[in-house]
Amino acid sequence: MTVLDKFLHGDQSALARLISFIENREDGYKRLLARLYPLSGNALRFGFTGPPGAGKSSLVNAVARRLVADGKRVGIIAVDPSSPFTGGALLGDRIRMNELPTDGSVYMRSMATRGSSGGLAAATNNVAVALDAFGFDYVLIETVGVGQVELDIIDTCDTVVVVLVPESGDAVQALKAGLMEIADIFAVNKADRPGARNIIAALQNMLEIKAEHSPWKWPVVPTEAIHDKNIDTLLEQILAHVAYSRESGLFERHRREQIRKKIFAILATQLKAAMEEKLNVKADLDHIVTRIYQGETDPYTVGDELLKLTQSE
Amino acid sequence: MTVLDKFLHGDQSALARLISFIENREDGYKRLLARLYPLSGNALRFGFTGPPGAGKSSLVNAVARRLVADGKRVGIIAVDPSSPFTGGALLGDRIRMNELPTDGSVYMRSMATRGSSGGLAAATNNVAVALDAFGFDYVLIETVGVGQVELDIIDTCDTVVVVLVPESGDAVQALKAGLMEIADIFAVNKADRPGARNIIAALQNMLEIKAEHSPWKWPVVPTEAIHDKNIDTLLEQILAHVAYSRESGLFERHRREQIRKKIFAILATQLKAAMEEKLNVKADLDHIVTRIYQGETDPYTVGDELLKLTQSE
Repeated sequence: MTVLDKFLHGDQSALARLISFIENREDGYKRLLARLYPLSGNALRFGFTGPPGAGKSSLVNAVARRLVADGKRVGIIAVDPSSPFTGGALLGDRIRMNELPTDGSVYMRSMATRGSSGGLAAATNNVAVALDAFGFDYVLIETVGVGQVELDIIDTCDTVVVVLVPESGDAVQALKAGLMEIADIFAVNKADRPGARNIIAALQNMLEIKAEHSPWKWPVVPTEAIHDKNIDTLLEQILAHVAYSRESGLFERHRREQIRKKIFAILATQLKAAMEEKLNVKADLDHIVTRIYQGETDPYTVGDELLKLTQSE
Repeated sequence: MTVLDKFLHGDQSALARLISFIENREDGYKRLLARLYPLSGNALRFGFTGPPGAGKSSLVNAVARRLVADGKRVGIIAVDPSSPFTGGALLGDRIRMNELPTDGSVYMRSMATRGSSGGLAAATNNVAVALDAFGFDYVLIETVGVGQVELDIIDTCDTVVVVLVPESGDAVQALKAGLMEIADIFAVNKADRPGARNIIAALQNMLEIKAEHSPWKWPVVPTEAIHDKNIDTLLEQILAHVAYSRESGLFERHRREQIRKKIFAILATQLKAAMEEKLNVKADLDHIVTRIYQGETDPYTVGDELLKLTQSE
């Protein structure tokens, strides 16, 4: 049996190998994805984002356990580009794995691709396709909500939970900064801490205005992930969002838009590679770079000239 | 006088307006950059990166003051994609501005473009070009060292200082995670705190191995930015790196590589736009998306087909 056959038969070690294959963009990974893609599309994808220390991992674990208790199978992708500084990723993985069922109902994958060749958002999306194709009912994606790449990642989810904590004192800032646009649900985790009421009230105040002309009323759910408190309510709200999203047509529109973006991203990558190859053959790039380096011209003027060259046969 | 004339005459409010113009990618910003580019290339660009709370801002300010004391003019770009959660950017700006000379010898610009249309690395590079063309002798770029985008930003600098603190306990992780490749100098800030000796020793140990076959011996400089301690030494090491870099040819190679990347990035953006336009006109994208959505085909197979279409006239 090939690794792909084993994957199709539900072998998790084959899954792990194929994910590595995809993540490392090994030769043939696109063909593999082309095989897996039509098998995907069944899993619901939920994103969890928020500041470091908000307890996202615990919350995602708690949600996963809750789903498993309902007989569902769950894949988790944990994206932590900040791990090099905290050194937490590896140790954290071990701790969080202990919290998860070991009967194969949950599979957890860390993406620690910092310093790699980039394309983290694309890689995360590809891994989600693999988990989806493998047959998980839900794919939970967890990432620190800072930076454009993280926004791109979270944008590939059907429903997005923004996780805040009482200490953040950041509700207003978070909303101002564009998180509002990606959040479908707010979880105020560690809700037993002082200040929880304040941040919930502040959030509700702001959301009231936003929700005035919207059929979706953004819920704010207090949670205590490590005590498994209110996870039911959070999950209910997530599923309510999925139901609203499906009924309103938002779900399909959103997924179609994701497909469209994916096509454009694939094409852009290929065009870029083709362009670089063509320029390396056709243009005297060294000479052009020298002229720019010496201040005789600039990359924008040169860009216009080269564009014509790349478009000629 | 046009804004550009005022800029060329050293008017800082004109500088501020042109930077906004560039940052917002307003109509004609490329023509403007094409004008500014040949005026740039004289400033040295130093990058400062490290975990949140390492005191990067204080360190950058201290280095700027030191340079000003030598009669130099300094532009600072502070990139803080994490500001939405900390809410610190605006308040922080005000505090740090108080620490800087107000005689025009220092100009500070925050890039808080999170949630914007992306392209943060390109935008930062463009702002650096503007500061350079304006006549600053040094451009200091400060960013949290997490995420691919931040790595791209820091890669546009001539010399990169990685700022750590005793608490980080992260030396080993930082080095493992690819920071080693971008660091030219390490500053251990808040060096009066416990653990400073340990982290310095750990860094030196690891660097010894790395430096064995390298002409550049990575220095580790203990600093106390808020007490202005050892800033002279740090600056000496930075300038020593510039000297080494110039002598070894690394400086020019690096800048030429940056120009090359810039050309490719400009071309890729233009090609992408042209491709999207062409596809929207020529291909029945809605139908294609529907087929993918229904699992009949996949974005990769479609990508190959569309690629031919975009390359035909």
